[in-house]
Amino acid sequence: MSKDKKFVEAITDMDVDFPRWYTDVVKKAELVDYSSVRGCMVIRPYGYAIWENIQSNLDKMFKETGHENVYMPMFIPESLLQKEADHIEGFAPEVAWVTHGGSEELGERLCVRPTSETLFAEHYSKIVNSYKDLPKLYNQWCSVVRWEKTTRPFLRTLEFLWQEGHTAHRTAEDAQEETLRMLDVYGRLCEEYLAIPVIKGRKTEKEKFAGAEATYTIESLMHDGKALQCGTSHYFGDGFAKAFDIQFTDSDGKMKHVHQTSWGVTTRLIGAIIMVHGDNSGLMLPPKIAPKQLVIIPVAQHKEGVLEKANELKERLSKEFRVQLDDSDKKPGWKYSEYEMKGVPLRVEIGPKDIEKNQAVLVRRDTREKVFVSLDELEAKITETLDSIQNDMLEAARTRQTEKTSVATDYDTFKETVANRPGFIKAMWCEDRACEEKIKEDTGASSRCMPFHDQEPIADTCICCEKPAKKLVYWGRAY
Amino acid sequence: MSKDKKFVEAITDMDVDFPRWYTDVVKKAELVDYSSVRGCMVIRPYGYAIWENIQSNLDKMFKETGHENVYMPMFIPESLLQKEADHIEGFAPEVAWVTHGGSEELGERLCVRPTSETLFAEHYSKIVNSYKDLPKLYNQWCSVVRWEKTTRPFLRTLEFLWQEGHTAHRTAEDAQEETLRMLDVYGRLCEEYLAIPVIKGRKTEKEKFAGAEATYTIESLMHDGKALQCGTSHYFGDGFAKAFDIQFTDSDGKMKHVHQTSWGVTTRLIGAIIMVHGDNSGLMLPPKIAPKQLVIIPVAQHKEGVLEKANELKERLSKEFRVQLDDSDKKPGWKYSEYEMKGVPLRVEIGPKDIEKNQAVLVRRDTREKVFVSLDELEAKITETLDSIQNDMLEAARTRQTEKTSVATDYDTFKETVANRPGFIKAMWCEDRACEEKIKEDTGASSRCMPFHDQEPIADTCICCEKPAKKLVYWGRAY
Ligand SMILES: [Zn+2]
Ligand SMILES: [Zn+2]
Repeated sequence: MSKDKKFVEAITDMDVDFPRWYTDVVKKAELVDYSSVRGCMVIRPYGYAIWENIQSNLDKMFKETGHENVYMPMFIPESLLQKEADHIEGFAPEVAWVTHGGSEELGERLCVRPTSETLFAEHYSKIVNSYKDLPKLYNQWCSVVRWEKTTRPFLRTLEFLWQEGHTAHRTAEDAQEETLRMLDVYGRLCEEYLAIPVIKGRKTEKEKFAGAEATYTIESLMHDGKALQCGTSHYFGDGFAKAFDIQFTDSDGKMKHVHQTSWGVTTRLIGAIIMVHGDNSGLMLPPKIAPKQLVIIPVAQHKEGVLEKANELKERLSKEFRVQLDDSDKKPGWKYSEYEMKGVPLRVEIGPKDIEKNQAVLVRRDTREKVFVSLDELEAKITETLDSIQNDMLEAARTRQTEKTSVATDYDTFKETVANRPGFIKAMWCEDRACEEKIKEDTGASSRCMPFHDQEPIADTCICCEKPAKKLVYWGRAY
Repeated sequence: MSKDKKFVEAITDMDVDFPRWYTDVVKKAELVDYSSVRGCMVIRPYGYAIWENIQSNLDKMFKETGHENVYMPMFIPESLLQKEADHIEGFAPEVAWVTHGGSEELGERLCVRPTSETLFAEHYSKIVNSYKDLPKLYNQWCSVVRWEKTTRPFLRTLEFLWQEGHTAHRTAEDAQEETLRMLDVYGRLCEEYLAIPVIKGRKTEKEKFAGAEATYTIESLMHDGKALQCGTSHYFGDGFAKAFDIQFTDSDGKMKHVHQTSWGVTTRLIGAIIMVHGDNSGLMLPPKIAPKQLVIIPVAQHKEGVLEKANELKERLSKEFRVQLDDSDKKPGWKYSEYEMKGVPLRVEIGPKDIEKNQAVLVRRDTREKVFVSLDELEAKITETLDSIQNDMLEAARTRQTEKTSVATDYDTFKETVANRPGFIKAMWCEDRACEEKIKEDTGASSRCMPFHDQEPIADTCICCEKPAKKLVYWGRAY
């Protein structure tokens, strides 16, 4: 921990008040600002740069798996939204309605898209004719609006940024495969880039997406033991295809309906990064998506040669890394705190003594470990250290997740665990929605998913009703 | 011209009906599709890929000039929009209003942003305190909505994609410099990437942006002689700063208002690319922003070894270029027409005889020139040819622009020129808005700009009222 605590002390201790710690961090690290629009946020340069890094890596993975980007209108006519019954039922209560254009009242209300299944379905119905046109593997990057009552930066806002993939396939099998392929892509994004370990699994009927046959999810665990859904992938079967008449002539000459999927991740992932990795000094960013991977801090910068050397290092290191140099007249201690708050993975200190010894000091944000490195091997050592940080952050988060995962085979233990050991709770379930609702009511915990990797029964009976159990479920309170 | 004309004949001759030619091209080249939302378009993968290439090049130029990306809410409360008087007057008639969220009526209407000056101003008023906080050089990529009566894909749509830069500076001079710097960036984008020559200049008072002190523009000329505004850059002075109270403590200890700019280009640029470069075979894309720079067409592909060779070439060339291989069972002639329609800059043909001779055939989209190239020097020759195409397209467009630029020193000639020689018309003006309005009424031509490069008087009197002239203006009918 740095000696100059003044800046750090301004944020709330995460163990005392986690929600306030979170709000302090997003503000102090300059990720967002509030605006005069209720529930909408200004994403500031530092926050947006994290999103750009997520975007560019994810977009590359989308393209590698054959997807193309498109752009659909932001408005959906009310009649179009109503075409698929479950879908409208799920979304109608939370959409924003445009009723006037200029000074004229519209003949039909338009909603601001909460998601774009209906627009993609309408488009597919026009451009898909033959099995040769399939699959259609489209994605779009945009913002969507959901009229939420209570909001929190990144986690729940009226408007948020996301990508939504929408695909159409010749067969059910192809679509199911796609649904899981994209869940895997999300899993890789989280683990390899964001250093966030995730549990992959299927959502229950109650928790699935409005209009989907099956919803799959990646779930992660925050510092406070609450779960956060990091991304979802939906299999629609031919429900939308029937509602929107998306048919094609198959190779056997018969007319058939396509099978569809959709999948999305949002700026919520930034919330996950904050709450999985952050600590009482502020943000902690994984090197792969950090806007600045390292910050150079000159020590005793008034001394001859220090600023020159710092600038020379900046020039040199910028060829390989995303680098910031802080040569402002603030004290080094203040700067240390500032860039710890901002979660810059690595600090490079350079002062007169270091220059004399042809060395620099590297300080890791995650472990605070401090090493002296010869300037001759600086790039190699930095690369190695950033790789370590990336891996160690994932492993540390995995360890915390494991520690925070409990097992319950009777309801009393279950309730006691939710109350006192926040985290995932593994427990058996009878597949009855009534039990799911009762558990939620009794404890506040919802079913997070039926995990793929973990379906060995741990008991014979449902944790709630004690009837025969059918599924192992991860439960937990969630964002 | 390819022999198989069937596909090509499906589009209207541009000399017969230019607007229909345009609509045919955007549809047949699969750039857009219509949606059930009036005036909104679906940007299809091929169209969106052009936008992505424009974006990535422009974004790089923004970052090189010190700009950072942010994201502002898409909604603006009515009271916020009203804070700057000229601004609200300009935009109120053409905004979409959200009046309901879910089932509740809102206390205050929100408009869907037509542009975001007000949101940036509000944000700056909160984050700018000292001269050390300046300049703020922000940009955002998003979509905006303007409730237009008549629409045309890319040229005028209710919703369109764009970037909007918004900056705040310590002094008027800094802001003016920025305004012109970004106009230069736009000029470079158009000329170096889109191969579109532009006239840079200042807009008249009548044509300037609502709330600006000065608006600068880059204007280009389409195939039909109509002008198209490709981008604008505005200097606001301290108008918004006063309306929104954006003040800072300067180094002299005094409180001062910032000076601001904004600047934007839109998906309209895709319309410009179509109308500047296209011909009766369809689209013609400059190599630097073409989604596919070359298409490989196997000839006699049923013959042994042809498809293998074509695939081998695809693999090999993809390392350096954006490549498509069409190995579908359609005839080569059909394929030639198809990729001419799509404007792919270079076609690579490979057939049995070519393989025997260790060569491929390169055919340029712009000149139709056909050359035989040894496979040993394929990459070098393709690089060279793509460079030539890029340069030649710019030069060809420049020649057409020069040919379509006329001079008028009396009103009869002016009117006759607008009617019979569509293009830019250089003529003197007294700076009286009444003349500008009369010219528009009489001829349909508007003032495009007062060009920087061309202010040598060509007459002493105004083309319209014959009073003393003050400015040389480029006039023309415009999109
Ligand atoms: Zn049960
Ligand atoms: Zn006049």
